[in-house]
Amino acid sequence: MATRRYAFGRADEATHPDSMRATLAEFASTLIFVFAGEGSGLALVKIYKDSAFSAGELIALALAHAFALFAAISASMHVSGGHVNPAVTFGALLGGRISVVRAIYYWIAQILGAIVASLLLRFVTNNMRPAGFHVSHGVGALHMLILEIVMTFGLMYTVYGTAIDPKRGSVSSIAPLAIGLIVGANILVGGPFDGACMNPALAFGPSLVGWRWHYHWIFWVGPFIGAALAALLYEYVVIPTEPPHQHHQPLAPEDY
Amino acid sequence: MATRRYAFGRADEATHPDSMRATLAEFASTLIFVFAGEGSGLALVKIYKDSAFSAGELIALALAHAFALFAAISASMHVSGGHVNPAVTFGALLGGRISVVRAIYYWIAQILGAIVASLLLRFVTNNMRPAGFHVSHGVGALHMLILEIVMTFGLMYTVYGTAIDPKRGSVSSIAPLAIGLIVGANILVGGPFDGACMNPALAFGPSLVGWRWHYHWIFWVGPFIGAALAALLYEYVVIPTEPPHQHHQPLAPEDY
Amino acid sequence: MATRRYAFGRADEATHPDSMRATLAEFASTLIFVFAGEGSGLALVKIYKDSAFSAGELIALALAHAFALFAAISASMHVSGGHVNPAVTFGALLGGRISVVRAIYYWIAQILGAIVASLLLRFVTNNMRPAGFHVSHGVGALHMLILEIVMTFGLMYTVYGTAIDPKRGSVSSIAPLAIGLIVGANILVGGPFDGACMNPALAFGPSLVGWRWHYHWIFWVGPFIGAALAALLYEYVVIPTEPPHQHHQPLAPEDY
Amino acid sequence: MATRRYAFGRADEATHPDSMRATLAEFASTLIFVFAGEGSGLALVKIYKDSAFSAGELIALALAHAFALFAAISASMHVSGGHVNPAVTFGALLGGRISVVRAIYYWIAQILGAIVASLLLRFVTNNMRPAGFHVSHGVGALHMLILEIVMTFGLMYTVYGTAIDPKRGSVSSIAPLAIGLIVGANILVGGPFDGACMNPALAFGPSLVGWRWHYHWIFWVGPFIGAALAALLYEYVVIPTEPPHQHHQPLAPEDY
Repeated sequence: MATRRYAFGRADEATHPDSMRATLAEFASTLIFVFAGEGSGLALVKIYKDSAFSAGELIALALAHAFALFAAISASMHVSGGHVNPAVTFGALLGGRISVVRAIYYWIAQILGAIVASLLLRFVTNNMRPAGFHVSHGVGALHMLILEIVMTFGLMYTVYGTAIDPKRGSVSSIAPLAIGLIVGANILVGGPFDGACMNPALAFGPSLVGWRWHYHWIFWVGPFIGAALAALLYEYVVIPTEPPHQHHQPLAPEDY
Repeated sequence: MATRRYAFGRADEATHPDSMRATLAEFASTLIFVFAGEGSGLALVKIYKDSAFSAGELIALALAHAFALFAAISASMHVSGGHVNPAVTFGALLGGRISVVRAIYYWIAQILGAIVASLLLRFVTNNMRPAGFHVSHGVGALHMLILEIVMTFGLMYTVYGTAIDPKRGSVSSIAPLAIGLIVGANILVGGPFDGACMNPALAFGPSLVGWRWHYHWIFWVGPFIGAALAALLYEYVVIPTEPPHQHHQPLAPEDY
Repeated sequence: MATRRYAFGRADEATHPDSMRATLAEFASTLIFVFAGEGSGLALVKIYKDSAFSAGELIALALAHAFALFAAISASMHVSGGHVNPAVTFGALLGGRISVVRAIYYWIAQILGAIVASLLLRFVTNNMRPAGFHVSHGVGALHMLILEIVMTFGLMYTVYGTAIDPKRGSVSSIAPLAIGLIVGANILVGGPFDGACMNPALAFGPSLVGWRWHYHWIFWVGPFIGAALAALLYEYVVIPTEPPHQHHQPLAPEDY
Repeated sequence: MATRRYAFGRADEATHPDSMRATLAEFASTLIFVFAGEGSGLALVKIYKDSAFSAGELIALALAHAFALFAAISASMHVSGGHVNPAVTFGALLGGRISVVRAIYYWIAQILGAIVASLLLRFVTNNMRPAGFHVSHGVGALHMLILEIVMTFGLMYTVYGTAIDPKRGSVSSIAPLAIGLIVGANILVGGPFDGACMNPALAFGPSLVGWRWHYHWIFWVGPFIGAALAALLYEYVVIPTEPPHQHHQPLAPEDY
């Protein structure tokens, strides 16, 4: 397994067609995800003319993000690993699961995908200004930073446990759904407080196109710290490091 | 793999029992999907006596379309490929994944399925007039055309990445769910603007039975363009074209 | 495949331990499903003190039925086939997929499971009277009969396409989810009209414990006709009957 | 199969690295689940300033618990069996599927995970007091005890049928989803009555951090009894005990 890690990449990584295709897949999937996620917020503004939360609005936002992220990851999982999120790419980099060159390619693709999605949204809504994320009344920047860290920890831990761990077994086929739905669950928690980002690209595209930068740093620093904590914990503590003769097969639930 | 493409079909395509069964499967699945999708709109009219959107109504519409499309695709995936949508059939045709003869059969079956579903809805609701799609105040035809293109791009890209790409790997078992839920996510975006169609059969059946044709062309032209863009991008850029000796197996996520 | 059909059952069917276990599984799964489905209706009465529909209430009912049916089928699929519905058992009987003896066992188990669930609900809610199904104002018995037929047709067609067809391929692992969610989608359509039953056990248990029998026959006759139509169509038209040398493997989506 | 049961554990169970990793996985997954589940309740208090139920709030709670539990189980299934619930661990212990030593480790990890999640919630919400569970007006302690027993019976029966039964077949890949969604369905039933706990850790963490202990015993005794009933029924009645020559393969749905 260790031989499959590419801490520094292959010699031809920067120009290999596989890298280009994976980068394109990250671009397309992030575009699809951000269009639906940010777009669902604009749809609610279209209905209600304000940005306050009700339970129904919160559910609509959570489902739009969860369902679209699930589809976007499903469509790119076998091509690029299905990151669709610069923080997930950062976690995979720290865990030694992706090379530095490829991580940079992915980050550029994800940010470009988010920007194009936001521009398309601005056009099709006849110039509605993307909302992005902001911090709610009654809570401070430190609270929101910790919130983003905890939520992204849950996201990255799910990514590792279902899509990266070589011993994950039969759940690998539903990994994209688990990753999409933990984002949906966390939006149902964090939505009324800071919007529940967990994804710097999802914050950056709408911020740029809507030109709103208040507390923008939280939505980079928080997700990167949360993803780093989960990746390091899973890669170096949860994944077994015993000699290979002890386990010949993935551990089935009835084996414990 | 290239040998499996049927750009012009088999000699006996028009009369082969497999074609007939696949066509019947498209008819039945489109009937089931349109009955639930359009029917959920009529159910809300039954409750509220108007067609305005609230977050709750938007969620009900999104879930009805998403869940029914998922089931309809699941039940026909192994028989017909589970298109249930003339735009998806068009994308598969452009990508060389289906013959012209079979595409024409599918289109007829999909449209007939949508018409029968709409007639059944008109009967069981004691003559309620199907609503179909329309363009909301504050946006124009061009905005809605681009919206349909972008949403159907996301749909067709998901179809290609999860159900057609031969290297898609273990996500193939959840392909119908990913396709159903990206439609649900896009309805949460486009619903308040133009109803979020992405499927000409879903527009045509209710339009015919309810006799409403305003802006009807958008719901054919938009989905066909969006599906074509995604199919061409995925078929000719994302799917690898290298000599087969480089990859002997589907690329697993830990392989990148 | 034909050799696996048990039109008349094995000689020891009535007393074989497998039959007993399967019957017990149908009892337990129907209990779990009816408890959640009917119980979600009582929960809404607890909140609102009336039985009128809003979009939010409709979604809560649809999700409770869909999620619980999915789990109940998942837990019994490998033991009993996961019917959890007398109409599905009737369809499987007509298609030659289950013996008469076993069908009778299943029907008794399903009805007993629904009755026990309804009694438990009456107790834990401190004697709230189960609501069951009724026909809404503005529609007649014939409309509702056709509605039940169409909705159950969609349900049974999904059961056949995902859980029974031997050539269904990789969707078999998500068959319980497809079956659960088509019921959820149909509730979003039929809920405001007749409650959307599709399952005589779900109607009978609450009707007996709540002693409400108005239009009760519709919820037996409609589901049985709809399931019969789908089973006969799928078994005798959609499932291939060609000589076995033509298809050696399940038809993959890229094979068409 | 019987040789795989560890009624008393391996000699090195207490110190084996696998036990430590599994215990850590239970801690992390319970933290993720309780953060989202309890946090979704605090999010609704943030919006509405009260703890009353509406259909929209009920759905938000159900989806947050269901989606997060699904992800948490998915990420730990192959490491620890994905219990994330002391009652499920108790059922697995009674069924002989886990050793006493490991059960004690899991219980400690689950309770610690719930406490840390509750502390984090208290911090990120700027000191909002976790709500935990309470009994609604109009029902008594005995009603709620039976409600918890019935709901946890459904949960544990689903766990056994999809994640433990060695003959469960292809549904094993969606076991975490079935388990998550039956919890969601049961919340749609029990939410307005007692909050619908089914998980002592989910009750204990918020109770400790919010210091609310009214009727707390119900949320331990009810889930433990319900899980015990389902585990004993499934392990000793539903799982076949015939000589192994009768069934060489898992029973496929078309085999009945």
